[in-house]
Amino acid sequence: MDKDLIKDLNFCLELEQMKNIFRQTKIIGQDRRENDAEHTFHIATMAIILEKYNSSKIDIGKTVQMLLVHDLVEMYAGDTFAFNIEANICKLNREKEAMVKIKNLTSKDTGDKIESLWHEFEEKTTSESKFANAMDRIQPLIANLERNDGGTWTEHKVKLAQVYERLEPVKDFNIQIYDYLIRRVNLAKENGLIY
Amino acid sequence: MDKDLIKDLNFCLELEQMKNIFRQTKIIGQDRRENDAEHTFHIATMAIILEKYNSSKIDIGKTVQMLLVHDLVEMYAGDTFAFNIEANICKLNREKEAMVKIKNLTSKDTGDKIESLWHEFEEKTTSESKFANAMDRIQPLIANLERNDGGTWTEHKVKLAQVYERLEPVKDFNIQIYDYLIRRVNLAKENGLIY
Repeated sequence: MDKDLIKDLNFCLELEQMKNIFRQTKIIGQDRRENDAEHTFHIATMAIILEKYNSSKIDIGKTVQMLLVHDLVEMYAGDTFAFNIEANICKLNREKEAMVKIKNLTSKDTGDKIESLWHEFEEKTTSESKFANAMDRIQPLIANLERNDGGTWTEHKVKLAQVYERLEPVKDFNIQIYDYLIRRVNLAKENGLIY
Repeated sequence: MDKDLIKDLNFCLELEQMKNIFRQTKIIGQDRRENDAEHTFHIATMAIILEKYNSSKIDIGKTVQMLLVHDLVEMYAGDTFAFNIEANICKLNREKEAMVKIKNLTSKDTGDKIESLWHEFEEKTTSESKFANAMDRIQPLIANLERNDGGTWTEHKVKLAQVYERLEPVKDFNIQIYDYLIRRVNLAKENGLIY
């Protein structure tokens, strides 16, 4: 069988690892952490549901592909908690090395496609990547808002200013949604769920 | 806030349920079953990787969206094991009712979009839906092939003819991949992993 095809078929098996990379966010109503596969499914499907509320027209097909691959580097670099400042300093280097590994494991076309979508997501300059980043910020936030214990906020003593900062990309996506989430975040602060 | 927006935002939370619908397929190397969110992530990302091997050109953005929503009905209808003949008889009715529920929970545009993509997937007439169905068949198959215990095949005494039938949509996708998988399935039969 064609060498490229064997590489890409084997890489489909590699994706299984995404089911074993655990994030800080907990599943609503449960005590277990969600994994990267679950998180990725969630935000990519949210993009389909919330597309029409974006402030500018976007290519949803491209956005959804970007979301599906944006965390693949974590198979080799691990998940980095958004509010852990130290871990985030060397995050980019770890993820760049992981992308080299992904490119070695896939055919040239496939590796290039994944890398290009990942760069676009990370650079946050196109409308699609801005919208995609908003999805990535909203999902863990609503998971915390739905928990009576404040989830990762109380667990890691996260400050209000840090939550506000994470929410910034939502402003460009939809100001109504941003204002609504800010109101709920302020309420969570009043209830002692944010440090 | 806009009524449609509230409905669709709440539906984004409903997606959390996909993390608690368990399939028969087990995670490779582990003893736990995978859930619908993990399965959906897996096949949608496989579509991005394997797109170029499809026998005809497809709209990958649309295909990926189709894959992301194709199992949402299972939030209310549950997962139906592919090799359980009895359960599959009333599957369609349960899933149609689930789609009515999804449409009640979402804004009109969003519900219509999800329903239309789901129908297209189920009808298997467009190139995109045929390719999407091939992804849905390959993923649990390669998970079983990678297990020394044969996974769901031995557990449910699945017959060779049934595995062949499930693999049919892969023929149209890529004959090289189909032949390769058939060879591996025959080997699994020889090793006593298929009934």
